[in-house]
Amino acid sequence: MSEIKNKLSLEPYKGTRDFYPKEQFVQNYIFSVWKKVCESYGYLEYNASILEETELYKSKSGEEIVNEQTYSFTDRGGRNVTIRPEMTPTVARMVAQKRKELTFPLRWFSVPNLFRYERPQRGRLREHWQLNADMFGVDGMEADVEVISLAHSIMKGFGAKDSDFNIRISNRKLTTFLLKEFFRLDEDKTYKVFKLIDKMKKLPESEFKEALEKVVGEIFEELYKTLKSENLESLNQEVLNSEGGKQVKELFEKLNKLGINNLVFDFSIVRGFDYYTGTVFEVYDTSPENNRALFGGGRYDDLVGIFGVEKVPGIGFGMGDVTMRDFLETHALMPEYKPAVKLYICHLEGCLDAASSLGSYLRELGINVSVDLTNRKVSLQVKAADREKIPYVLVVGEEEVKTGKFKVKNLKDSSEIEVEKEKIVELIK
Amino acid sequence: MSEIKNKLSLEPYKGTRDFYPKEQFVQNYIFSVWKKVCESYGYLEYNASILEETELYKSKSGEEIVNEQTYSFTDRGGRNVTIRPEMTPTVARMVAQKRKELTFPLRWFSVPNLFRYERPQRGRLREHWQLNADMFGVDGMEADVEVISLAHSIMKGFGAKDSDFNIRISNRKLTTFLLKEFFRLDEDKTYKVFKLIDKMKKLPESEFKEALEKVVGEIFEELYKTLKSENLESLNQEVLNSEGGKQVKELFEKLNKLGINNLVFDFSIVRGFDYYTGTVFEVYDTSPENNRALFGGGRYDDLVGIFGVEKVPGIGFGMGDVTMRDFLETHALMPEYKPAVKLYICHLEGCLDAASSLGSYLRELGINVSVDLTNRKVSLQVKAADREKIPYVLVVGEEEVKTGKFKVKNLKDSSEIEVEKEKIVELIK
Repeated sequence: MSEIKNKLSLEPYKGTRDFYPKEQFVQNYIFSVWKKVCESYGYLEYNASILEETELYKSKSGEEIVNEQTYSFTDRGGRNVTIRPEMTPTVARMVAQKRKELTFPLRWFSVPNLFRYERPQRGRLREHWQLNADMFGVDGMEADVEVISLAHSIMKGFGAKDSDFNIRISNRKLTTFLLKEFFRLDEDKTYKVFKLIDKMKKLPESEFKEALEKVVGEIFEELYKTLKSENLESLNQEVLNSEGGKQVKELFEKLNKLGINNLVFDFSIVRGFDYYTGTVFEVYDTSPENNRALFGGGRYDDLVGIFGVEKVPGIGFGMGDVTMRDFLETHALMPEYKPAVKLYICHLEGCLDAASSLGSYLRELGINVSVDLTNRKVSLQVKAADREKIPYVLVVGEEEVKTGKFKVKNLKDSSEIEVEKEKIVELIK
Repeated sequence: MSEIKNKLSLEPYKGTRDFYPKEQFVQNYIFSVWKKVCESYGYLEYNASILEETELYKSKSGEEIVNEQTYSFTDRGGRNVTIRPEMTPTVARMVAQKRKELTFPLRWFSVPNLFRYERPQRGRLREHWQLNADMFGVDGMEADVEVISLAHSIMKGFGAKDSDFNIRISNRKLTTFLLKEFFRLDEDKTYKVFKLIDKMKKLPESEFKEALEKVVGEIFEELYKTLKSENLESLNQEVLNSEGGKQVKELFEKLNKLGINNLVFDFSIVRGFDYYTGTVFEVYDTSPENNRALFGGGRYDDLVGIFGVEKVPGIGFGMGDVTMRDFLETHALMPEYKPAVKLYICHLEGCLDAASSLGSYLRELGINVSVDLTNRKVSLQVKAADREKIPYVLVVGEEEVKTGKFKVKNLKDSSEIEVEKEKIVELIK
């Protein structure tokens, strides 16, 4: 064995994270808020394997993602396999598979981990976890309203104020109308402009305008002005009265009616994936230090249909754990670490068996108890409990075994109360 | 798009599963019992990425597993990467990495998904989820006692009776002493016999004995008799008084003292992985229809040391979701499906906005509510709720909007109570 010593890496694989208990605590907190709010809207949890046949991503995820950004390989049976880079194709596949047995409208959520092969950077790792919440079977704007309400409620569920974030909304049908019908661009140019708009927030203004001019020619200034405007009402009436325009108006009105007002109309929201067909939205952090998209989603009415079955309209969003952590830290919304264990039982020499029995007894009464199993000094045992932020500690010695009375110490304020064995649970709960 | 129609598979990748909400409910139930019992013993949750560098598995997982049974590939940066087939190497890596900052004894658990490239069969899929519970930093038998108690408590946590399962225990040190010192086999033969013993329960008796004779020669009958005996006390005194023998005796005594009596001494338990060093155990289903190992684990005191740092003793076990489902089904311990959503709101024509507002109102008061967003007949809306096993339903019509009173129907017994909006939550909770 000695020849491999020092060669084994202690680090996690590049771009992934180890979750030690304190990090897992944060992860569990984020997941629990996601789950709680989704369930309050009637969303049911589902899941699937992290491996899918590569074919699944070829048609609709967008070329860049499949070709350059996925982990794909051939298995021993010759199948092309991909570690999922996103959950939407999987959920569409599952809906297509059981569409005859499922009850619509279908409200589903999941918290999958996803892999992208990219250079790790702030808010972008190779592996992250992502809430996916989706509704299937409703093509009216009621579904769009509910899904965006859900996203809003989740932000509130984390303790965010309306001023901490806004929801930027656009509509693919509206943008398509603007480009094709109003600006009379052909199919190819429309596609190119879509891809450009997706980079609008990342490119310097001059660079963006230059690229835009290359595609559309002299109308680029007018088009740019339209794309930059965040005022829906300032749009040309013809555009505003197109199907997409009406949808955006209805969406804003209904969301306002439900008390959701931190909305911004924003043409630059298109979302990278090719499968979106209508409403698209992104939630932005409004703080100057972290002014970026936190998550987003949209409507994809054609996705289930690519499996060769009748179409089922769908709408949903994905919300990542990495960006959520950044948001919670930026806004001081991260909860303090608390271990699930409430009591640490220490023992004097010869009393370990008694300590173990007491541990079993208390566990059966419903409290979480750790027993120190080492032979070290009691002071070191107590120190271990304190370092782990366990709130209560007690020491089992011969005296305690004899009398059946224990001094329960609160490590936060150092207060100590002596109680009988039967009263320990009551004291701690 | 049409050319790819009908070609996309609706199935999950071979050997993996889709978890529709009803299956996910079972998954969540299993995970919640695991988590609850682990936390009652003071175990803290951790996690890591499903990808690790292949190197990690080469030294200690056992050759068969690394060579034939893993999903391994080379990433675009030339790294050899493996989708984890087990969690123990990862947890050992994490402990080795932060051993200076961590507080021992360390009690950790995780519920990772694991991949093995094998032919799917009952209880063995390519992907499964597995509880991993481990303790680090205690080399005394107290740790072995606690870890096996934890496994026992988890079985009880699922509602199993002591007669539904037993815990089969052996000790690698004891077996090594038996083979090397008592039967005087050399290193190579000892290793070969270990590998054979691992297959003892799977091979027909005659085949096993034949294979055994090939390795050890004429002593095979005597060795076979010893290996088959489940009576610890019948062992030769020299063997019984070896370090491993004493450990097994202490373990049985202390577990009995804690009230755990469904224990069997069984030489055939060795566990496949090369890294075990002392106690090894497996929990068996005792029912005739499902008489097989459910899960197991053992002590691995050298594993952290292979990272080139000082040794840290470790002991733990892994418990899979697939075998657990089989066990729960065999013993009729599976809970009935219940969705998290408690109330389904239906609506008459023109009342969808009012239904949505009522939904928001009730959600804020803490109950989980679905609103039907379709335009179908009310009877179909109610049917949808019933099919999804949602316990309560109400219908919003003009009358209800006017009076603010709603008829809440219990779908189980068809009883109906009319209450004011403010009383709905009370009624349902």
